[in-house]
Amino acid sequence: MTIETQEYLIDIVEQGNEKALRTTLASMASADIAEYIDENFEVYGAMALMEKMSAEQQAAVFGYLRPNNQQELARHMEVGMLAKLFRDMSSDERADVYAMLNVKLQDALMRRMAKTERDDLLMLASYEEGLVGSVMTSGYASIPLGVTVETALYRLRQSAPEKETIYQTYVVDKEHKLHGVVSLRDLITASPDDIIDDIMVRDVLTVSPDMPQSEAARIISRYDLIAIPVIDKDRLLVGMVTFDDAMDVVEEEDTDTMHRSATVGKIEGGFKDASPFTIYRSRVNWLVLLVFANIFSGAGIAHFEETIKAYGALLFFLPLLIASGGNTGAQAATLIVRGIATGDVFKSDWPRMLAKELLVSVALGVTMAISIGVIGYWRAGPDIILVVALSMLCIVLVGSLIGVLLPFVLNRFGWDPATASSPLVTTIADTSGVLIYFGIASAILDFSVVPG
Amino acid sequence: MTIETQEYLIDIVEQGNEKALRTTLASMASADIAEYIDENFEVYGAMALMEKMSAEQQAAVFGYLRPNNQQELARHMEVGMLAKLFRDMSSDERADVYAMLNVKLQDALMRRMAKTERDDLLMLASYEEGLVGSVMTSGYASIPLGVTVETALYRLRQSAPEKETIYQTYVVDKEHKLHGVVSLRDLITASPDDIIDDIMVRDVLTVSPDMPQSEAARIISRYDLIAIPVIDKDRLLVGMVTFDDAMDVVEEEDTDTMHRSATVGKIEGGFKDASPFTIYRSRVNWLVLLVFANIFSGAGIAHFEETIKAYGALLFFLPLLIASGGNTGAQAATLIVRGIATGDVFKSDWPRMLAKELLVSVALGVTMAISIGVIGYWRAGPDIILVVALSMLCIVLVGSLIGVLLPFVLNRFGWDPATASSPLVTTIADTSGVLIYFGIASAILDFSVVPG
Repeated sequence: MTIETQEYLIDIVEQGNEKALRTTLASMASADIAEYIDENFEVYGAMALMEKMSAEQQAAVFGYLRPNNQQELARHMEVGMLAKLFRDMSSDERADVYAMLNVKLQDALMRRMAKTERDDLLMLASYEEGLVGSVMTSGYASIPLGVTVETALYRLRQSAPEKETIYQTYVVDKEHKLHGVVSLRDLITASPDDIIDDIMVRDVLTVSPDMPQSEAARIISRYDLIAIPVIDKDRLLVGMVTFDDAMDVVEEEDTDTMHRSATVGKIEGGFKDASPFTIYRSRVNWLVLLVFANIFSGAGIAHFEETIKAYGALLFFLPLLIASGGNTGAQAATLIVRGIATGDVFKSDWPRMLAKELLVSVALGVTMAISIGVIGYWRAGPDIILVVALSMLCIVLVGSLIGVLLPFVLNRFGWDPATASSPLVTTIADTSGVLIYFGIASAILDFSVVPG
Repeated sequence: MTIETQEYLIDIVEQGNEKALRTTLASMASADIAEYIDENFEVYGAMALMEKMSAEQQAAVFGYLRPNNQQELARHMEVGMLAKLFRDMSSDERADVYAMLNVKLQDALMRRMAKTERDDLLMLASYEEGLVGSVMTSGYASIPLGVTVETALYRLRQSAPEKETIYQTYVVDKEHKLHGVVSLRDLITASPDDIIDDIMVRDVLTVSPDMPQSEAARIISRYDLIAIPVIDKDRLLVGMVTFDDAMDVVEEEDTDTMHRSATVGKIEGGFKDASPFTIYRSRVNWLVLLVFANIFSGAGIAHFEETIKAYGALLFFLPLLIASGGNTGAQAATLIVRGIATGDVFKSDWPRMLAKELLVSVALGVTMAISIGVIGYWRAGPDIILVVALSMLCIVLVGSLIGVLLPFVLNRFGWDPATASSPLVTTIADTSGVLIYFGIASAILDFSVVPG
């Protein structure tokens, strides 16, 4: 929403002109109103604003609110009003909100619902977060086998208001087993007397409710689908995942991957609203772990204390060399991790990726060896230049290999490849860097010059 | 696609049973066939396979192929066949393919096209990559103001085969100015005699062709749209961006952001197919730049050579401290960069984010100071422990602040916040870390003990 719209709404709210407020709200998108409420959240203000909207808009706005604000509002609302709101929400959002209410409120709501609604809600709320079942909706359109196009269209018209989309209609038998799908496009271009069975598509892409939601999202994105049906192991139709939910899932998963690649754990409900303690918790474990992991680098440097004392000039190049290994490794790891996540790179591609990275890293290593050689020219003699240039080449090579291989290795052991985060790769590359640098230095310098 | 499907297709192709091949291809999704061709790419094999498909499927499969394979095929195809393929492709894909052909082929194709098609193609191909104009399609459905629902439905039925979607229809006047939008859902639930003007939505969300494509994608995702109309400055309707293109844009942008956050430049056409030279070029600049940036760390360490020689134990803790500043900074920067990219964090939020990060980083700093203190207990005396614990606290604090502020600062100067990549933050944090560590060490140790 533009800042102007925000400010305009703030003005209208402050003026207290109820009619103007109603008109303004009716003309606004639900996502924008929800953003306004989220940004200026205060329970009673939010409830007063909601009362100025139609029932449908109330439900839509409520569905867009941040989870903790939904929870706050639900707690302060009269049960009757909450039940009304519930009825107008889409079935997947309803299940999400239901799952976060306390038991007392859940019971009170249940008592106000019809049996079919209740069963539907319990079914949807029973799936663990992250699974297809938790993002699917039961607001799909379905028609029985054998009806004509005319009948199908008539039924769709009748049921349209309760459905999330009618652009895909699922064709089912008496047991609700999925037999095919027909798009509204095909329905309106077919002849009214055609039988559904003859125009429906039988090869339907489906997902199951206990699949990871990210998999469903990738299928929807890959095949450009508006929605995908969810069927259980007996091919019974249990729900549908729509493209807009898939977009949200992809965004959420990408956020998790990016955070993980900087050793930040999962933050439920978004970073902006997270409490300092939540953020602390999501970051502290890896940070402390990495402190301990760096003991190896420390021990490596300490081991070469005598060499360092004899050749003080080596210290100058230490950060340049160590950082380069880490940076090259982080580049390689990021390319592979993202490639695996988008399905561009397969698990079996590692030999090809490794071969290509070897080529690239030799070229990078040579370029960087020349760079550090040029820098070295102003700081040290030819023997030190030889040591740092050679070390740079080796460190870049080793850093790259760690960066390419670590994601595949983690994947092999069932870990998320994104755990091969830049900091982890950097830490491992650092230790190797220290050993390579001082190893090469001891070998070359101790033979050519006797330390004084 | 499952590995089974892949292998099955390979079998069928090898058997050379043409009828079986045709049936198999007809039953497969275009995206899957394209993947098969991409994975086993060979020009003549691909052309032979394409010949076994219907014209529509050929166009769809071609549209899914990787850009370099499209180019390769187009170069080897007869112009007549390419022109036929062109006619069946969606207008945005057609423009993409056209843009990468050589001038001779472009001319040959142009001569085989009707004037309106030609104008359309030239218009779409004229937009720079990354702008809305380059992803929009002219395959939208439109109807004039004033028609009845019945007429609208009749027209949609007639034109459906050429349209990318008919679920959104744009209502235009004689000059093709956009006045409203009507969904197919609303059309089929309305009465046939209703006039479009009365049922259309007038408050239409629109984008302009020279907006960044990522902005259009974020609007589509935020408002859960199937498509968004593109209008020029005179409100003339020039195209439409569909949800599936938006998904591709989001994925591509996220890939770019992730790459940039590890100092990898933009790689056109995907990482997997990129030549080693392309990958080298996308990585070398930042790496070399960072080598030079690390000179400051090196100079810092060199400056404190005497302190280090007097207190060799300090060396052991060097990597632990330096890495911690970089890691904390990378965490903070990643959270902010992703927050800005998804619209969760606004540019004006920086004071709030800074305040929260201060709280979090004090807590993280204390935890890590205790960790390094415990490690120090086994390696050094109380004075050194005091130095390293105090340094850790300061380094973590400074690292976090750099991580939070850098993205906002870059954004302020019109740079992409993702340029505040982990390696850049790490490099800056490293230099500060060296100065803080040895600064504190000199201050505390040189006063308490006289180096021997």
